[in-house]
Amino acid sequence: MTGSGSSVIDVIRTKRDRGQLTDEQIDRTVAAYTRGDVADEQMAALAMAILLNGMDARETARWTAAMIASGERLALPDIGRPLVDKHSTGGVGDKITLPLAPLVAACGAAVPQLSGRGLGHTGGTLDKLESIPGWRAELSVDEIASQLADVGAVICATTPTLAPADRKLYALRDVTGTVESIPLIASSIMSKKIAEGTDGLVLDVKSGSGAFMKTAERARELAATMVDIGAAHGVATTAVLTDMSVPLGRAVGNALEVAESVEVLRGGGPADVVALTVALAEEMLGLAGIDADPATVLASGAAYPVWEAMIAAQGGDPTASLPTPAHIQELRADRSGVLERCDALAVGIAAWRLGAGRARKEHAVQAAAGIRLLLDVGDEVEAGQPLLELHTDTPNAVPGALAALESGIVVGDGPAAARPSLIGSVLRP
Amino acid sequence: MTGSGSSVIDVIRTKRDRGQLTDEQIDRTVAAYTRGDVADEQMAALAMAILLNGMDARETARWTAAMIASGERLALPDIGRPLVDKHSTGGVGDKITLPLAPLVAACGAAVPQLSGRGLGHTGGTLDKLESIPGWRAELSVDEIASQLADVGAVICATTPTLAPADRKLYALRDVTGTVESIPLIASSIMSKKIAEGTDGLVLDVKSGSGAFMKTAERARELAATMVDIGAAHGVATTAVLTDMSVPLGRAVGNALEVAESVEVLRGGGPADVVALTVALAEEMLGLAGIDADPATVLASGAAYPVWEAMIAAQGGDPTASLPTPAHIQELRADRSGVLERCDALAVGIAAWRLGAGRARKEHAVQAAAGIRLLLDVGDEVEAGQPLLELHTDTPNAVPGALAALESGIVVGDGPAAARPSLIGSVLRP
Repeated sequence: MTGSGSSVIDVIRTKRDRGQLTDEQIDRTVAAYTRGDVADEQMAALAMAILLNGMDARETARWTAAMIASGERLALPDIGRPLVDKHSTGGVGDKITLPLAPLVAACGAAVPQLSGRGLGHTGGTLDKLESIPGWRAELSVDEIASQLADVGAVICATTPTLAPADRKLYALRDVTGTVESIPLIASSIMSKKIAEGTDGLVLDVKSGSGAFMKTAERARELAATMVDIGAAHGVATTAVLTDMSVPLGRAVGNALEVAESVEVLRGGGPADVVALTVALAEEMLGLAGIDADPATVLASGAAYPVWEAMIAAQGGDPTASLPTPAHIQELRADRSGVLERCDALAVGIAAWRLGAGRARKEHAVQAAAGIRLLLDVGDEVEAGQPLLELHTDTPNAVPGALAALESGIVVGDGPAAARPSLIGSVLRP
Repeated sequence: MTGSGSSVIDVIRTKRDRGQLTDEQIDRTVAAYTRGDVADEQMAALAMAILLNGMDARETARWTAAMIASGERLALPDIGRPLVDKHSTGGVGDKITLPLAPLVAACGAAVPQLSGRGLGHTGGTLDKLESIPGWRAELSVDEIASQLADVGAVICATTPTLAPADRKLYALRDVTGTVESIPLIASSIMSKKIAEGTDGLVLDVKSGSGAFMKTAERARELAATMVDIGAAHGVATTAVLTDMSVPLGRAVGNALEVAESVEVLRGGGPADVVALTVALAEEMLGLAGIDADPATVLASGAAYPVWEAMIAAQGGDPTASLPTPAHIQELRADRSGVLERCDALAVGIAAWRLGAGRARKEHAVQAAAGIRLLLDVGDEVEAGQPLLELHTDTPNAVPGALAALESGIVVGDGPAAARPSLIGSVLRP
């Protein structure tokens, strides 16, 4: 009865009153929001109603389809290799994309990895690679296609033409307390990945203090929702549930993580980074139908030349020295004992405060800032022994970083509490 | 961790996660929204969270206080009579304010009745009075004060300086599907009424098809919430629960309702209008501490001179002829039997379609449009006998009005179903 605009109000009321949205309601609402015909305040009310009252599998798949339909799909030409992609929900020290894309390419698949920048305590893949002198994130579709054909792996910035509704909606959710909705998180991730036109997709869904999902139950629910969306859109999708209660590897920060990734690509590196890289590569190659042994390929160093080619193709110098920080400070044990705790969130916040991350989209990050961990949880420690290094160009950031670490790095009488196993179950359609 | 604006996001998250908002959070959020420092999309998300997760009595009283604090309070000088006001949640044919204000003034109290215009199927008090030639709704505070002293009754437009946060929030709720929240409805009504500076307040809270609250349970909940808010703010408040499943009286529409009100003020008029006017007057006089018999005063016609003075003081000519419609059409019974049903919502929508109401704020209403009911529910009917008249200046509106009446006006074998009693229980603090 209130004239124009009543249809979106009906949609809001439907979800508010625990109803199911029809396909037509979802298509119309997302399209109108993208055009600006549904106001931000209306979408905010709808997002809150969705967060509190949920969407079922059909609604979520359709919502994803509507977000894909808001933009273009990446039209990659057939390059004679299966396309397979990976997405991580983000964690502290999570540099896995860097060794993984060259490794999977070295095994015969093609990896079009469109990525984002970091916000908050988890780093962004593009931020890490931008610490390599000369490397550029922005590629045209033609450049992506030819690099995929020539090198087999691309890690670059997502294009603004993919799922523009998602970009607009994510910015809105960020300021309206409506981020933490599993259907909205799942459709946000999947709309971008499906719009990229990949044949297969492996999801690394993390839980624990340093992850977006704090509990294994929420992570499993998110993973299952995304696997369902992939199936509904004909994209072969599996999800690996992994632990993010301690940082991955020993390097947290942009250039520090590139250096650790190069170690892994040369056949070395921390065992947890190697294990997760291999596990995700096995899933990706399985989806691509390629029979290969990524553990052996990685250990042999055969993926490193692919990395060099990938970096060079995007203007980077893979042999150049990485930036070093203006200031390094050690944190030393104040007693002897056992390193009982190295909390992912604490280390992530400390690295972020040192300059490795940004608080707002428009901020820059420091290439050399971050934290180098010197011990693993469970290691014995002498009083005065260095536990970790804080790297920064802005020494006045150190006290804030140390405050974040205070209860997160604990030396005690031991033993350390058992942590969940790094690699948990795998969800398949 | 996301920098500026995070405090309102925390407020949204608190309510989203079923927490209670602190007094300080409520004060800060409402004040910032009024200033424009909280964005519409943020308030929309919060309103949806409040609608779905509720606010308790303390939060609701504080929300009301924050809305009052967003503007001025009406500073009326002491005129030597107690101030007492009435608010109705709105219904079809609800012209009670028109006879009630002069009646209560005739009994010795002063009635500052600040009112609104109608939107949708329930008419607005100002729209009705504006059908009187010359009458004007807008008065200054000085004019309100002197008219209260001279006449004892004022019915005029609310001023934009009272509870501006409510005006802004109501417009937002209207387009975001967040109108139907009892704490938000209650605080909206009470913030304006308390800001008027009345000593006592009687609420007519309606339920039934023609009311905003469709069930008696929801009406009781709203009434109790408003009585609690009044008590928390030191305004003596009672609520009368009344039925709105059939129209009040026999006239629905602006000039039609003025004419019926004049009949009541002269000692006649429909029994239900008289009964409700007297019941509300008794409550108002009770709050004002005045021992009077409003039934006798009304029946004697002694309130009519107050009406004349009130209309004349605002530029109206109480003796002028009221506007008549360009077109009158009867709806006749298609069979003999009993008038079993005369549904308030159906009649309200029909009158609205005939031009008595508006679909959008900026629309005008027709002074003469509406419906005149010729029978009461339960009356016997001959086939072909007129049941009601449709009045309009725009005859092309008649088919839509008839369609609205189709299932709402029913002649059958009888007897008519019993309706709830017009005047139900009274809630007191």
